[in-house]
Amino acid sequence: MQMTRRNLLTGAAAIGATAIAPATGFLPARAAAPPLGAQAPGFYRYKVGSFECTSINDGARTFPMPDTFVKNVPKEQALAAAEAAYMPKGMVTVPFNPQLINTGSKLVLIDCGNGVATFEPSKGAVGRTLHNLAAAGVDPKSIDVVLMSHLHPDHTNGIRAADGSMAFPNAEIMVPAMDWAFWMSDENAAKAESNPMMKNYFAGVKKIYAGIEGKVTKYDWGKEVVPGINSVATPGHTPGHTAFVIASGSSKILIQSDVTNIPELFLRNPDWHVAFDIDPVMAQETRHKFYDMAAAEKAMVVGFHFTFPSIGHVEKDGAKYRLIPVAWNPVI
Amino acid sequence: MQMTRRNLLTGAAAIGATAIAPATGFLPARAAAPPLGAQAPGFYRYKVGSFECTSINDGARTFPMPDTFVKNVPKEQALAAAEAAYMPKGMVTVPFNPQLINTGSKLVLIDCGNGVATFEPSKGAVGRTLHNLAAAGVDPKSIDVVLMSHLHPDHTNGIRAADGSMAFPNAEIMVPAMDWAFWMSDENAAKAESNPMMKNYFAGVKKIYAGIEGKVTKYDWGKEVVPGINSVATPGHTPGHTAFVIASGSSKILIQSDVTNIPELFLRNPDWHVAFDIDPVMAQETRHKFYDMAAAEKAMVVGFHFTFPSIGHVEKDGAKYRLIPVAWNPVI
Repeated sequence: MQMTRRNLLTGAAAIGATAIAPATGFLPARAAAPPLGAQAPGFYRYKVGSFECTSINDGARTFPMPDTFVKNVPKEQALAAAEAAYMPKGMVTVPFNPQLINTGSKLVLIDCGNGVATFEPSKGAVGRTLHNLAAAGVDPKSIDVVLMSHLHPDHTNGIRAADGSMAFPNAEIMVPAMDWAFWMSDENAAKAESNPMMKNYFAGVKKIYAGIEGKVTKYDWGKEVVPGINSVATPGHTPGHTAFVIASGSSKILIQSDVTNIPELFLRNPDWHVAFDIDPVMAQETRHKFYDMAAAEKAMVVGFHFTFPSIGHVEKDGAKYRLIPVAWNPVI
Repeated sequence: MQMTRRNLLTGAAAIGATAIAPATGFLPARAAAPPLGAQAPGFYRYKVGSFECTSINDGARTFPMPDTFVKNVPKEQALAAAEAAYMPKGMVTVPFNPQLINTGSKLVLIDCGNGVATFEPSKGAVGRTLHNLAAAGVDPKSIDVVLMSHLHPDHTNGIRAADGSMAFPNAEIMVPAMDWAFWMSDENAAKAESNPMMKNYFAGVKKIYAGIEGKVTKYDWGKEVVPGINSVATPGHTPGHTAFVIASGSSKILIQSDVTNIPELFLRNPDWHVAFDIDPVMAQETRHKFYDMAAAEKAMVVGFHFTFPSIGHVEKDGAKYRLIPVAWNPVI
């Protein structure tokens, strides 16, 4: 057929209306192949110098966009941005991606996902970190350090398995000192009583760390928290929110954590305030600083809320930024 | 540390120069985890109505950009576009992605990759279709139809296994009638004697189809070649180059085949002529027509040479187009 607008537009309908007349007489003797159902495992390997890194997909959550998902623009504007990124109408999709870094001497998991007991586990769309670590051939017992960027539930709840036991039993748990102080403060929790989301977050941190408070290591910004992994102050999203520079030889990568939430909304519109930012004005300032640098350096950036494999470069586009996802490497 | 430009820029060097002083005294008794090396399997499942589709990565090839990779612009301009897409300096990366479509009654492989004997197989970066089909749980014997978009080696050579036997022994092989006539013509082959690339292509088609010429089914444009799969005339790249509309229920997807080669160069610059186009002016015209439609319809498009998983939407950007890769779906 000639390729005309009408043909492509009405292709499906025309096909449906036509009696099916295969071009050939081929008829297999065997039964039709059954559908296989399962998605490919959600892990992706990349090298940073001599370090072997693995992006681990904890899943993605698609939900009706809350009225205040973006606090400082009308909802229609936020919905239009989601739709321009081909998200389902009225919905927003938020992915989650912890990073596994094997420095050769330490196996470090940066953030650990929603945990299996969060967000409609029956759907299986989140809490997939243990599943995808297994697919990647990684024994949770072999993880030496779990390094938290901040203490929001989608980053920290995965430290516990479904039965409440420690998911990474041999791992030291490292948390940003400033986030620990903030979330463990009874005074701060009392102030948050009137805000259901914040109240929930405070209770969640207490619950997930109950009984292991003494075993947690607090780290500061500007430190080499693990050899080759440096903590970078990126406050605003939470008081202790931390990004990381992973460096080996002459290579490095920036783990941005939640400097931006989903890039389709908040990198395209860096002045928009996501509902989860505790100090949105500071977060906005951090976002501009971080991405002006990352763009100027042409740095590789990993985002916890970028679509899997969650790695890319960022370019400036006037007052906006654009994420250019990395090309899939079939071998490493 | 404060996040300053200097900090991010010199992070690696600074880290290297500092004596390593981990923030904690944690020392595991066990050995360091070994690197695991292998990349994740390159397959990705998606639904089109009731059809279960799987993008199968045949690999990607990174090579020094030939002088005439883009025939109608200076090489520096082509290199600049590659570099703007973060390809390695001086190089170009071309991925390859056949599509497996299970219509419920037929299991159809659209194009079949480079084959195991092409392009430095020792590197393992291409010819991965059988490997990734296996990872996806698909027995090559269960494939009913291999549907070729055109007869270039990266699309067609995978019909043979390493030992020369048929890789999909029970499959009918369907080829575009016009491409078959073009590539099988001794007169055309004689005319191409002076062009090493074309000479090689003519010889390749004869070799790969040797002994099975009579078993090949030729199909025309504008036909439902397999129930739910319609052939669309998209000539220029080759005389019989074909795209497909996959349609099930009210859903559809466009398999663009090689309407554009790598989108980073030829969708951003739709008037550029890739070295492999036989009639580049017609290919350019086809490209504009196809993408004006795809963008207007907000259609999902699959590109053989898009980075894995090779699915996205296309938007107009002035006289250019931009590919918005699909968000990775952790479940289907």
